[in-house]
Amino acid sequence: MTEQAAPRRRPGRRPGSADTRGQVLAAARKIFAEKGYDKATVRGIAAEAGVDPALVHHYFSSKEGVFVAAMQFPMVPADVLPKIIAGPGEQIGERIVRFLLTMTSAPEAREPIVALMRTAMVNEQAVGMLREFITDAILSRVAQALSIPPIRMEVAFAQMFGVLMMRYIVELEPLASADTEELVEILAPTVQRYLTA
Amino acid sequence: MTEQAAPRRRPGRRPGSADTRGQVLAAARKIFAEKGYDKATVRGIAAEAGVDPALVHHYFSSKEGVFVAAMQFPMVPADVLPKIIAGPGEQIGERIVRFLLTMTSAPEAREPIVALMRTAMVNEQAVGMLREFITDAILSRVAQALSIPPIRMEVAFAQMFGVLMMRYIVELEPLASADTEELVEILAPTVQRYLTA
Repeated sequence: MTEQAAPRRRPGRRPGSADTRGQVLAAARKIFAEKGYDKATVRGIAAEAGVDPALVHHYFSSKEGVFVAAMQFPMVPADVLPKIIAGPGEQIGERIVRFLLTMTSAPEAREPIVALMRTAMVNEQAVGMLREFITDAILSRVAQALSIPPIRMEVAFAQMFGVLMMRYIVELEPLASADTEELVEILAPTVQRYLTA
Repeated sequence: MTEQAAPRRRPGRRPGSADTRGQVLAAARKIFAEKGYDKATVRGIAAEAGVDPALVHHYFSSKEGVFVAAMQFPMVPADVLPKIIAGPGEQIGERIVRFLLTMTSAPEAREPIVALMRTAMVNEQAVGMLREFITDAILSRVAQALSIPPIRMEVAFAQMFGVLMMRYIVELEPLASADTEELVEILAPTVQRYLTA
């Protein structure tokens, strides 16, 4: 194949480069905002970025992986949840509370999550996207794995969401300065009750 | 006293008129936003509105009353909390959960609260004002009346705040459509445990 036979590309459109990855993420943010999480597809994101869907799968494995990378979330629920669910059932509340408090204790891990929460509070598109992602990637999976009614998973999520919001956004004291283990002791029995009743 | 001896006033500044009340509320919103809830005073609000502090007390009883009226909140915590606290101790969780869910079920009661929550999430001044009001007017009072550590009151508040946010802003289903009594049954034991341990 000669150089002339190669398709013409815009500068920086070399597949597999760091730049292509950035283009996919920019396309993903646009598509997720426009269509929401449920209706967005890897194919649609690839088309928007002008790349092959296989390349998107190669970089990010799944739509969930693209979303997490696009929002700069510190972890992919599909990777983390099986480990949390797999341990002893009578300590699942403790594992969930400790995981969430530990993960969000690092500012660089917490800030993208807080930023999306903030945007979602004042923006209809963002709240729809967040609702669909939370439901599909987190709440439905845990509720199904534990065979509990979805509403119990939702109030457990509301407890932890409320605590993180009061700790990091409203900064209520002493909650904002409390150490992780004190909070695990107070909160774990609540989450445990919701998830085992 | 002759008409000429009366002090000159700007039009609409007649003490006791509906217009004066509106001026006090406009002044209150300005002062609370600038100084926060703790540092704002009835005297400062009266000065901003150009009225006597006694008139502000006459209309609104207290700084708390002015704040609630200025933010269009549906109730004054100082009026409501004693009744909730006074009942049987073993049902206080149930009374709190049912009160909050019933109060927020009416859109006209809920909307000013949701509006301030939204503003607080994205505005440093508003979040400080809300933090101080919540702490002074609600959390400290209940924690003191029940002799519980403040952090337990804060996680109980975080639970209910999270549920209201998921129900009315994020609109997670089935939580958003669940009836009050179903939610009371799930949530009351949590609040009860925090407030009696």
